[in-house]
Amino acid sequence: MIGGSRDAFIGAIHRMAMRLDDQIELVAGVFSRDSEKSRATGEDLFLDRRRVYDDYETMAAVEAARPPEERIDLVTITTPNASHVPIAKAFLGAGFHVVCEKPLGVSLTEALELREVVRASGRIFALTHNYTGYGMVKEARELVRSGLLGALRKVVVEYPQGWMSKPLPNEATSNRSWRMDPEINGPSGCLADIGTHAENLARYITGLRIKALCAEFTTFVPGRLLEDDATLLLRYHGGAKGILSASQISIGEENRLRICVYGTEAGLEWRQEQPNELMIKPAAGPREIRRPGNDYLSSAVRRFGRLPAGHPDGFIEAFGNIYREVARAIAALLGGAPPPVDCDFPTIDDGVEGMAFVECALQSARAGGLWRSMPEVR
Amino acid sequence: MIGGSRDAFIGAIHRMAMRLDDQIELVAGVFSRDSEKSRATGEDLFLDRRRVYDDYETMAAVEAARPPEERIDLVTITTPNASHVPIAKAFLGAGFHVVCEKPLGVSLTEALELREVVRASGRIFALTHNYTGYGMVKEARELVRSGLLGALRKVVVEYPQGWMSKPLPNEATSNRSWRMDPEINGPSGCLADIGTHAENLARYITGLRIKALCAEFTTFVPGRLLEDDATLLLRYHGGAKGILSASQISIGEENRLRICVYGTEAGLEWRQEQPNELMIKPAAGPREIRRPGNDYLSSAVRRFGRLPAGHPDGFIEAFGNIYREVARAIAALLGGAPPPVDCDFPTIDDGVEGMAFVECALQSARAGGLWRSMPEVR
Amino acid sequence: MIGGSRDAFIGAIHRMAMRLDDQIELVAGVFSRDSEKSRATGEDLFLDRRRVYDDYETMAAVEAARPPEERIDLVTITTPNASHVPIAKAFLGAGFHVVCEKPLGVSLTEALELREVVRASGRIFALTHNYTGYGMVKEARELVRSGLLGALRKVVVEYPQGWMSKPLPNEATSNRSWRMDPEINGPSGCLADIGTHAENLARYITGLRIKALCAEFTTFVPGRLLEDDATLLLRYHGGAKGILSASQISIGEENRLRICVYGTEAGLEWRQEQPNELMIKPAAGPREIRRPGNDYLSSAVRRFGRLPAGHPDGFIEAFGNIYREVARAIAALLGGAPPPVDCDFPTIDDGVEGMAFVECALQSARAGGLWRSMPEVR
Amino acid sequence: MIGGSRDAFIGAIHRMAMRLDDQIELVAGVFSRDSEKSRATGEDLFLDRRRVYDDYETMAAVEAARPPEERIDLVTITTPNASHVPIAKAFLGAGFHVVCEKPLGVSLTEALELREVVRASGRIFALTHNYTGYGMVKEARELVRSGLLGALRKVVVEYPQGWMSKPLPNEATSNRSWRMDPEINGPSGCLADIGTHAENLARYITGLRIKALCAEFTTFVPGRLLEDDATLLLRYHGGAKGILSASQISIGEENRLRICVYGTEAGLEWRQEQPNELMIKPAAGPREIRRPGNDYLSSAVRRFGRLPAGHPDGFIEAFGNIYREVARAIAALLGGAPPPVDCDFPTIDDGVEGMAFVECALQSARAGGLWRSMPEVR
Repeated sequence: MIGGSRDAFIGAIHRMAMRLDDQIELVAGVFSRDSEKSRATGEDLFLDRRRVYDDYETMAAVEAARPPEERIDLVTITTPNASHVPIAKAFLGAGFHVVCEKPLGVSLTEALELREVVRASGRIFALTHNYTGYGMVKEARELVRSGLLGALRKVVVEYPQGWMSKPLPNEATSNRSWRMDPEINGPSGCLADIGTHAENLARYITGLRIKALCAEFTTFVPGRLLEDDATLLLRYHGGAKGILSASQISIGEENRLRICVYGTEAGLEWRQEQPNELMIKPAAGPREIRRPGNDYLSSAVRRFGRLPAGHPDGFIEAFGNIYREVARAIAALLGGAPPPVDCDFPTIDDGVEGMAFVECALQSARAGGLWRSMPEVR
Repeated sequence: MIGGSRDAFIGAIHRMAMRLDDQIELVAGVFSRDSEKSRATGEDLFLDRRRVYDDYETMAAVEAARPPEERIDLVTITTPNASHVPIAKAFLGAGFHVVCEKPLGVSLTEALELREVVRASGRIFALTHNYTGYGMVKEARELVRSGLLGALRKVVVEYPQGWMSKPLPNEATSNRSWRMDPEINGPSGCLADIGTHAENLARYITGLRIKALCAEFTTFVPGRLLEDDATLLLRYHGGAKGILSASQISIGEENRLRICVYGTEAGLEWRQEQPNELMIKPAAGPREIRRPGNDYLSSAVRRFGRLPAGHPDGFIEAFGNIYREVARAIAALLGGAPPPVDCDFPTIDDGVEGMAFVECALQSARAGGLWRSMPEVR
Repeated sequence: MIGGSRDAFIGAIHRMAMRLDDQIELVAGVFSRDSEKSRATGEDLFLDRRRVYDDYETMAAVEAARPPEERIDLVTITTPNASHVPIAKAFLGAGFHVVCEKPLGVSLTEALELREVVRASGRIFALTHNYTGYGMVKEARELVRSGLLGALRKVVVEYPQGWMSKPLPNEATSNRSWRMDPEINGPSGCLADIGTHAENLARYITGLRIKALCAEFTTFVPGRLLEDDATLLLRYHGGAKGILSASQISIGEENRLRICVYGTEAGLEWRQEQPNELMIKPAAGPREIRRPGNDYLSSAVRRFGRLPAGHPDGFIEAFGNIYREVARAIAALLGGAPPPVDCDFPTIDDGVEGMAFVECALQSARAGGLWRSMPEVR
Repeated sequence: MIGGSRDAFIGAIHRMAMRLDDQIELVAGVFSRDSEKSRATGEDLFLDRRRVYDDYETMAAVEAARPPEERIDLVTITTPNASHVPIAKAFLGAGFHVVCEKPLGVSLTEALELREVVRASGRIFALTHNYTGYGMVKEARELVRSGLLGALRKVVVEYPQGWMSKPLPNEATSNRSWRMDPEINGPSGCLADIGTHAENLARYITGLRIKALCAEFTTFVPGRLLEDDATLLLRYHGGAKGILSASQISIGEENRLRICVYGTEAGLEWRQEQPNELMIKPAAGPREIRRPGNDYLSSAVRRFGRLPAGHPDGFIEAFGNIYREVARAIAALLGGAPPPVDCDFPTIDDGVEGMAFVECALQSARAGGLWRSMPEVR
């Protein structure tokens, strides 16, 4: 693991998620650029102190030099955005598989470069758009694929949070936190941070691709350099329309990612804060609530179930599903086989789409909310 | 009553709403342009057949000629949009108070003309933006006014319905229903029909006024002449932002009007399909759910309560609150006093704002989604 | 109307409920034993003051002496429990139909006597167990009847309120309110007041009849003479089991009547505070939510719909359904026909069952919670 | 671990729960009485095959003989009920700490014997009444303790499941599954299995102790030897009353454990299927919803948070909290200190209370539903 020191919340989540299914063991890392903090984190985690490295370049080199049965297979990158691509390149270059936090990086250009590296490496690269790990999100996708909704017409996806509605503690002192520092976080704040989750979720469920968009960015809290609220109108290829909003100043909201999809035959709704319910709204019958652990779910969903019905899955289990699939793919490769075709985790292509989305939105917003065409990046 | 024959659903709702509080008695009407249907409706309603008229001009003239204690006080207009203004003018001209269905008419020009007539008449004119009649909507407004939310930053209001996601029965035969006929309904479909409710609700609660907007209109069902889906980005005077969406092709949705408002100190949420809950989301405390019939509500809200807590209010009760306030205003005028200052019903000014909103949105949408400034109509 | 003066909340509700569908007009009454208060209420209601009577005996006699086209058809009794039966007898004896508040009276003996009077009179007698007026309750009954749930096994019905968790204002001064005065309210408090609603609701939906019960009564607030909390275990004829609880000290609850029914094939759930949802829980498929105004509902339910889907029905509309059915029955009789066979309102038999239930529960509770057999009263 | 082979769902849950916080590593076990199945499970778990034992006696002896730094610290027992106590005795006798599935055993007598062993051993003994591991359950307890609810009056706890509403697959062939086999499961079915969870949850939150109870047991599915539905009326010491129901034939329910508590000042409600909300219902103010991850929670609750607000916790995280506290206690002992006084996991005393509860209920039910006093077992 790179990043994820003691006080970084996302690193701890990655560790719980990877640990959950007993397929991945954390054995080495650079947990902080502060070596002391890194070592302390390694001790918390009962690691061999020789495998807590001072920097990621050293780690990539030293691990690659170990005999195959002793070296790591996979590295997880949980650092701020600007370092994702360089770190990923280093480990891919050293022959390791990579799991990387979203967004992929800070520009479409570096995303496209990384894609070349990934493609050339033959290694697994997964991006932790973890919300697609929820079983009911997977069920939503299966139902769309099955044709239950008919031709899709409209997507409404919103991701309001409130935690940045007041200046953050470190903003008060340094006038910026890394999330609002363009040099560390890249040129977009809220949209890069959580809007990309919304974009990924909508694309995962619907398969729709954005043709053009109109973006309105706002920085509500004085002194911030990046937007803390973003709303986008979307036109999809094929005629469907969308509304995508991401906000970190929606005070009182916790992490209320929600998506509604409407087709010619039925609609659906899913909410992250109540993740174990998927509501189906048919044209002419009672609404249906689908829940995990039941035999009526799609087979592609049932295989992710860890618990009987009525035992709520949470955020960590959804996150763990990403790691479970990555582990499945790596296990296949270690056994000399290609990854199973149904392996289900976000890839480098998702990351590139996300960066294209952010850049296109930035162009629209900077133009004062004019429509812009999405670049074709497939 | 003008309009509201046997098979018109909205006329029946008006009658229940006006009857509820025993302040208004229906005694005369033109229920249909088809005289036979009009008379049959009059019989259903136990009316004196001499007061079921063939046309509204006759009704206005004959009723005005009756002695004061026998003539009507108030007329309710529940016809399609294009006839609202002419009928209202006729009755205002004859000295009667008017309650009119929304939207006010089919153009801003006629709305402004009607406002002149209303102002000159000294009569009451109320527009049935009935969703503002819900107690919890009134509580939301009071809480905003009290400063609980702080300075407002963001409004998200959505009004999805699904009943037009398939061609309507009469669309199948005549290729259009009146709601999709520009000559009867005016130049906007979905936005005029329900988007104006959303606009009015947001303005009622927040007091915010739109400075500019960007509109995306879509006609999803083939053959329709008007939009059946509309989404707008809003910039308010003072810096707040908004998202307003109205849709009649959100399949499986019934009448899911919902509003979220976020300020610097707290947020709130209200949903029409569960109208007896208002959720308050403070920055740093537990969420609160406010419900009708409780002493903790604002006094401006408590006076609308008809029931003890836990006895759900519904759509008719909210609608009835509009009529109750209109009756209160008329009763004051009949008694020689001005209407109470706290009378709470949508007025001609709300109607003008609504028409300005629709026209501005039409301009933006026709320009392909460019930002347009709202005309100043106060 | 007998009872229901200005400050009585239930009288006002009856008036709104009877008015809603324009089939019943209030023309006469004794609104209070205090003549002045009665007359003032009559004025509020725009009544002819000659038809605001001093006592119910006079009213019954004078109205009966009017010519048929001028006299009342129906009387509504909204007085405290102990006077229900005497008043009902007086009006039935004078040839009038009767709508009576629940519970039927204060003893099984007087209930059985009244049943004889009703049967002999040929008049309509309806008891306002109004919760059975909700469309989704009717749908629940239809689904049970259709066999969707299979053979019924278990019923859980609970009716918690919190409004008596503290001494009431008049309890503070007089040490009792009428609801806790055995001479006015009868020998049971909470169970008679709201437990009978729960019993009626469960019987209406399921058709099950209680064979034996075990009751635990508690008086939590010091100084009260009647129970303010009651829980019963039920054994139904046929082997099903039940739990019925009624409480007025469940602090913070408003009027949370809820019922769950489980059969061999499916379960269902309905909650009064969210009355527009009926949840069906099948053995092996997604849960279903049924809502008013939709074509998929049973035809026996659709005819009660006043509004399109998504426009919430509330308490008054459910209450109005009782009056609507009573009016339908009376209209048939006035036209010389028998009441329609599908007339759907609680009858004298429901009242008798309710009193048998209360008396049986009292016997069990007084015995310290021993099982007692329900008397057969059919 | 003893028990928990490949196809046992509860064993897998224990492993995820213990793994989550990186404090416990599974190194040895007897996963099945079928040695082959046990070994296969060990391989799934990447265990050293020499530490997958054939029987628990051998495991206890061999592990005890290892040097301290190599031997296990803790054993988890996930076998059927009848073997809990013998296995626990063996490992306690060998000096190990024990985590044991609920219920504690099959009789109060053996429970009391085990308590003696535990007390004499000085070892940690934890019982996995895992629902008390949810943060919002802990918050409920803290709020009761703080006096927010005032003096407690009423507890309603229900635990309906539907998975046994039809004969189970193995019931069809062998006419019983182990859960319905008195020799393996003990003399109570549904109440021992899930009613003990309800009892423990209620006691955890309220601190109330049962004085007497009245139980109604039913076996709905033909051929079963144990009850599949149980309802109890409770009288608590101090005057509070309770209703406790447990059912495995509540068809369509998944795992709907719910508790409502009412005091003189406020009420609360928590539901396992939506575990991240705790509703507080004050006497005279808006309802409050408390959610994990927020600073307004009690400090005793915040220390269990792994995630920021809005990231749902699920069943595994709650279960993991039991293990986390056990690990904390063991870590203290390993460091030579006593377990922290605020260690929060169910103990041998909870197990004894649970067995006393089951035995008392059995006596009441067998007597046809007569009240019985709870034995004093403290």
